[in-house]
Amino acid sequence: MFASRYLRQSLTQHTRRFNSTLAGLDASKVKVTKSQALKPLVANKDLLFGHTFTDHMITADWNEQEGWLAPEIRPYGNLSLAPSAVVFHYASECFEGMKAYKDKKGNTRLFRPDMNMARMNRSTARIALPQFEGDELIKLIKEYAKLDDRWIPNDRGYSLYLRPTMIGTQEALGVNAPSNAKLFVIGCPVGPYYKTGFAAVKLMATTEYVRAWPRGTGDAKIGGNYAPGLLPQRMAAKAGYQQNLWLFGDDHQLTEVGTMNLFILWKNESNELELVTPPLDGSILPGVTRDSILSLARGWNEFKVTERKMTMPQLRDAIKQDRVVEMFGAGTACIVSPIKTIEYLGEDLSIPLDPKDPTSQAGPYTRRFNDEIMDIQYGDKESDWSVVI
Amino acid sequence: MFASRYLRQSLTQHTRRFNSTLAGLDASKVKVTKSQALKPLVANKDLLFGHTFTDHMITADWNEQEGWLAPEIRPYGNLSLAPSAVVFHYASECFEGMKAYKDKKGNTRLFRPDMNMARMNRSTARIALPQFEGDELIKLIKEYAKLDDRWIPNDRGYSLYLRPTMIGTQEALGVNAPSNAKLFVIGCPVGPYYKTGFAAVKLMATTEYVRAWPRGTGDAKIGGNYAPGLLPQRMAAKAGYQQNLWLFGDDHQLTEVGTMNLFILWKNESNELELVTPPLDGSILPGVTRDSILSLARGWNEFKVTERKMTMPQLRDAIKQDRVVEMFGAGTACIVSPIKTIEYLGEDLSIPLDPKDPTSQAGPYTRRFNDEIMDIQYGDKESDWSVVI
Repeated sequence: MFASRYLRQSLTQHTRRFNSTLAGLDASKVKVTKSQALKPLVANKDLLFGHTFTDHMITADWNEQEGWLAPEIRPYGNLSLAPSAVVFHYASECFEGMKAYKDKKGNTRLFRPDMNMARMNRSTARIALPQFEGDELIKLIKEYAKLDDRWIPNDRGYSLYLRPTMIGTQEALGVNAPSNAKLFVIGCPVGPYYKTGFAAVKLMATTEYVRAWPRGTGDAKIGGNYAPGLLPQRMAAKAGYQQNLWLFGDDHQLTEVGTMNLFILWKNESNELELVTPPLDGSILPGVTRDSILSLARGWNEFKVTERKMTMPQLRDAIKQDRVVEMFGAGTACIVSPIKTIEYLGEDLSIPLDPKDPTSQAGPYTRRFNDEIMDIQYGDKESDWSVVI
Repeated sequence: MFASRYLRQSLTQHTRRFNSTLAGLDASKVKVTKSQALKPLVANKDLLFGHTFTDHMITADWNEQEGWLAPEIRPYGNLSLAPSAVVFHYASECFEGMKAYKDKKGNTRLFRPDMNMARMNRSTARIALPQFEGDELIKLIKEYAKLDDRWIPNDRGYSLYLRPTMIGTQEALGVNAPSNAKLFVIGCPVGPYYKTGFAAVKLMATTEYVRAWPRGTGDAKIGGNYAPGLLPQRMAAKAGYQQNLWLFGDDHQLTEVGTMNLFILWKNESNELELVTPPLDGSILPGVTRDSILSLARGWNEFKVTERKMTMPQLRDAIKQDRVVEMFGAGTACIVSPIKTIEYLGEDLSIPLDPKDPTSQAGPYTRRFNDEIMDIQYGDKESDWSVVI
């Protein structure tokens, strides 16, 4: 009885704004105001992730009386918000990371944008921000990308990183579901994550802090999941490791690496070659790259592909028995991030990269995932995942 | 070895900004700009929590090159921030709640402000925001309270709610410790939480969501702890309950109630009268009111006072055996919030209020805690906890 009541409430909760008479997000109502002072482009070689923004941005305001007001594409600029706005106090905020790519014909492409829209609506539902029509936001992003076309770099490896964000803007200190919200999208041209090819990373396993837990918010892309990761990240950096490795539970289950999903290619307990990633149990972010890698690997059908829990002691044993083949993080920023070392309880454990090339910074499977995904993103390989604007 | 390395790093981490040559927060450098258009006061009867703000606010900016710049007291007004500011994306934000009270002589008083400053510095450390000199912020708050003195209501039960807040303002999308931050304090006159005396609340025990976790952030007053609570709160409200009761673990340990700490006065397993509150194990917010209640109760020495875990099944059994005497939430907004009902797994459990007065909305001990704390806050009883401005 309790479960059914919960489910009923939950569904009502998550969909009430679609069922209501409130206005939905409508790209056809967009008001476009072009910037009168276009900024100089930044040379590809000078691009630093997340520091350079294009000339325009998308904004749309929502309130609980009217729903979504007409969206705008307008010059990139500051937001003016009351110091009492709930986003400053209660972390009423969620976001997405996605990219626009130039193919060889000069077309602009998005990579699985429907996945980002669906996840963002799950994130907003989890923190009582409003739902929005994902297809309409994709239309707005397409129009924005056309307007700021000159900011989308041409070279393979370069792209326009897009950051859809929703924040609660109600001006009141009570801890309540926000009556007002703002959706915005900003974009920044970015270069390849590794400018000189792959650079395998060293991880420090974090045993003092946990990122997420069952029935928490680890599967939602909300701001509150990120600030608490800065301290373990900085502790890792000070000790000479590029990222931290998040563990969970007394048995030290592997969960995520920094802000990425985690993959292990190993010979399992039955000596089968197996690609393992932690399962979507509610505490793992359902990454678009994660999903793409699983799908590609299942399509290859060359080894077992499993979403399952694995503990750090199990991994340590496998490393010491030379059963680990490759490990990598996966996310939109880097696609894959090869891992060469994990520090765990004071011990540095070495992960193989390429057995045939001691100078290589990535294993052959890690490279292959990277290259196949890039081929799709840049339109060199036809796929439903790549959406031409 | 691992533990000692962690402790060393942690200490370095948390104090590096005090050990450095960066400028500290310095109230003597304050620049005061008075508002040229004072707002009309709002009548006490019309005050709604967190909606009315005074004429001025405190702001201070920090950057990692210089440290704290000169603070300002300036007209209350919007913050202008880049849409890339980290506070909008990664919940780089933490806050405090405290109040200024008028005593019968017309003095303004703060209640244990050192506790708020210490906790805020623990919160900033946990999310890689800068440390600040708490004594200096108290000086700034005193100056601000003098300037906006007309906004501090005179009547007992009324006060000026103060909201110190720190946000990360760096304009960059990389997930890194912010290079820039802003501290601000806003104030709003507020009335008694219960305008017509106490109103006991009905709670719904939340079994689908978990607020905090060991080695998480439940003991820090950071924004990210609050947005995820809105959904369970709204589910409770829709089912006719004023607040949700947070549980933890498969055994359903009691943790917090809504955004308050939880107290149970009961006859324990040995038939001793005992005041119980969940222990500060890292997942419970160390409330100033919580600490004050424990201290008062220990001073009374009339019953056992214990910080320990208690499960919902234990509480249910005690309720059914008529061993529960009173229950209440505790926090700055309400001081105490008497509890009359808890819904747990489909069953409404009734908690006694006042056995001698069936019309009463609070038990005698709950009232006594409330009255003794108010006596101190309003200067009717001398105490080191009350600081005259």
